[in-house]
Parts: sequence; C-alpha cells; structure tokens
Amino acid sequence: MLIQMKITDFLEELSSNSPAPGGGSISALSGALGGALTAMVCRLTSGNSKYAEVENEIEVMLAEVDKLTKVLARCVDADTEAFNKVMAAYKLPKATEVEKAARSEAIQKSMQHAANLPLDVAECCLKILAMAGRVLTIGNANAASDAAVAGLMAHAGLHGALYNVKINLGSIKDETFVITTQAKIETIVGQDRELHEQLLAAASRVIG
Amino acid sequence: MLIQMKITDFLEELSSNSPAPGGGSISALSGALGGALTAMVCRLTSGNSKYAEVENEIEVMLAEVDKLTKVLARCVDADTEAFNKVMAAYKLPKATEVEKAARSEAIQKSMQHAANLPLDVAECCLKILAMAGRVLTIGNANAASDAAVAGLMAHAGLHGALYNVKINLGSIKDETFVITTQAKIETIVGQDRELHEQLLAAASRVIG
Repeated sequence: MLIQMKITDFLEELSSNSPAPGGGSISALSGALGGALTAMVCRLTSGNSKYAEVENEIEVMLAEVDKLTKVLARCVDADTEAFNKVMAAYKLPKATEVEKAARSEAIQKSMQHAANLPLDVAECCLKILAMAGRVLTIGNANAASDAAVAGLMAHAGLHGALYNVKINLGSIKDETFVITTQAKIETIVGQDRELHEQLLAAASRVIG
Repeated sequence: MLIQMKITDFLEELSSNSPAPGGGSISALSGALGGALTAMVCRLTSGNSKYAEVENEIEVMLAEVDKLTKVLARCVDADTEAFNKVMAAYKLPKATEVEKAARSEAIQKSMQHAANLPLDVAECCLKILAMAGRVLTIGNANAASDAAVAGLMAHAGLHGALYNVKINLGSIKDETFVITTQAKIETIVGQDRELHEQLLAAASRVIG
C-alpha cells in the first residue's frame, strides 16, 4: 500500500517514470494532510479555557475531520487502483466482436469508477476547507497559520481531484453520467470559490 | 526524522495535539510532492519520440526539479526543527537582566531563521510551479492532469510557506530584516500570481 510507504520512498516512487501513483493519489493525500492539520488545530483549541465557548463546536468538527482524513488516506491507494483498472481494461483482448464489446464495457465501467472516486475526494476536501476556515476564525490563534495551510491543502486537493474527474470524463460515453457529473463539478467549484475566499480573508485578518 | 515516517504514521502525528510538525512542514511537503509529480511528467515525456523536439529542455528541467524536490523534502524536517528552536528560546531563563538579554537575542535569532526557512521553501515552490506549467504545455499530454496537480501543490506550498514567514515576521524586531523580507514576499506573490494563472489557463486548454 502507498499509504504505508515511508515519505521519502513515496516521493521516489512518485517521481519515477511509472504513471501511477499520479495526480489523483496526490490530490487525495493533499486533502488528508489538510484534514490532519485541521484536526491538530482543533486539538490545540479544545480543552483550552480561553476557547471554552466554542468547545462543543470544535469537538463535533474534530470527530468529522478525523473521519474525513481517514477516508482521504484510503483514497490515496484507491485512486491508483482505479487508474490501474482502467489500464487493465485497455489491455483486454479485442480480436473478436464479443471481445471488443466486453473490452469496451470494461473500459467504460472502470472509467466511471475512476471519475467517481476523485469526485468523492473533491467533496471530502470541500468539507475540510470549510472546517479549516472555521477553525481559523474561532480556534487557537497561535495555530492560525496551520489552519490557513490546512485550507490551502484542501483547496489544492479539491481542484487536483476535479482535474482527475474531467480527464476521465472525456472518455465516458454515457451522456447522462457526463452531464450529471459536470453539474456536480460546477456545484463544488462554486462552493470552493466562496470558502476559499473566506479562508484567505480570515488568514489576511489574523496573519497579515 | 519526519520524512522517514510512514505516511499513515505521519498523518497521525500531524493531527495530534502537538504543534509540531505543523503548517510549515506541510508546505514544504506540498512543494516536494509537486516536484516529484513534475519529475514524473518529465520522465513520461523524455525518451518518447513524439516529444523528441523538447527532449533537451525536459532533461534540463528534470535535473533541476529532482534537486528542488530533495531540498524541499529536507525542509519538512528543517521547518519543524526551526519551530522547536523558537520554542526552546522562549523557555530560556529570564531571572536576571543578563539572562533576559540572552533570551531575547536567542528568540530573535531563532525567529529570523524560522522566517528565512519558509521563504526558501516558497522560492523552491515558485520554480516548481513554473516547471509544472511548462511541462503541462510541452510535455506528454497523457500526463496533463498530473502536471496540473503538480502545479497546484507547488502553489499551495508557496502560499502556505508565506503564511509561515509572515507569522514569524510579526515578532521580529529588526526593521531592516522585516522590510527586506516583506519585499521578497511581494515579489514571490506577484510571480506566483502570473504563473498560477498560466497554469490554470493551460490546464483549461488541455483538460477542460
């Protein structure tokens, strides 16, 4: 598993001339790093008497962000597996009409999965971005730059994941799937734009 | 060393209630991930006859980006060490005037180092962002989304690092140092804005 690798080995593997792991896994990892950093800021806030008023909200956030971080960490491997399945489908035999049809179906099915997975990643990143912005505003001021970085990582993971949705969408023939997915992308992009602006404004207020 | 940890363990450590590692280390890691991903796209381009015309440029880029990735990977630990040195300086004795002066000097010195380090990280990220955008335009089109994600990671690492410069700058008394550093920040932000816009435009052309 990629997620069980040492960071140095992972960087080495990433930079190699093998296409996997690639941008999809890195987007999920970026979101997971943002999630873990958001969780750190929550933990540095919770239990601090100075922030007693927001304790309950922080605790609810912490439980949610810990869960999302774990989901995104799993997606680091899941995205590479999804990519490998697409590659495997392309390598299926295509000598006969029956084989051709089976191969085409396998490609389409694996492509839809390879598009749905980063869409889930983007949705998780959106939630983390919202929480990073919130904890930057109400959480421990000593960890403000950590909350800001957490939001940037979630924002980068979100857009990275959406590139991976789009790149797969280009090869998907099911028009309903394509239109539905494009609508989901637009919704996420709109929500991200607002949350990202709020994050930058809060960071500018608190950090400078 | 942080960089020798398994990714799962690193995420666990990051999310703990200890302030280190924090946003500074994650910004360096984000840049390193962007560098490794840029290197992958270079390797998927170099040696491919379809891209023979850009082979030389890609090879020069690859050597440079491999170097920057290693520098940034080292900064993951270096940033946390710099933060720990600031914390240690604050814990120095301050019972006498002599101790107070020594403590204040140690704080200022460690703060300047803790500001200079993420400034270096931001400059490395800027170079990677430029290369990610370039390889997205001239490199292997099959890896276009990887190049785009690489650029996003470098961009996030750059701004994350700059938050860490600014947060330290607030406590630095040497006015010349503060003014010089602020000017460097402005230059980097301006160059990043242009390169990031170019990256998004190229990604939009190639990916959609």
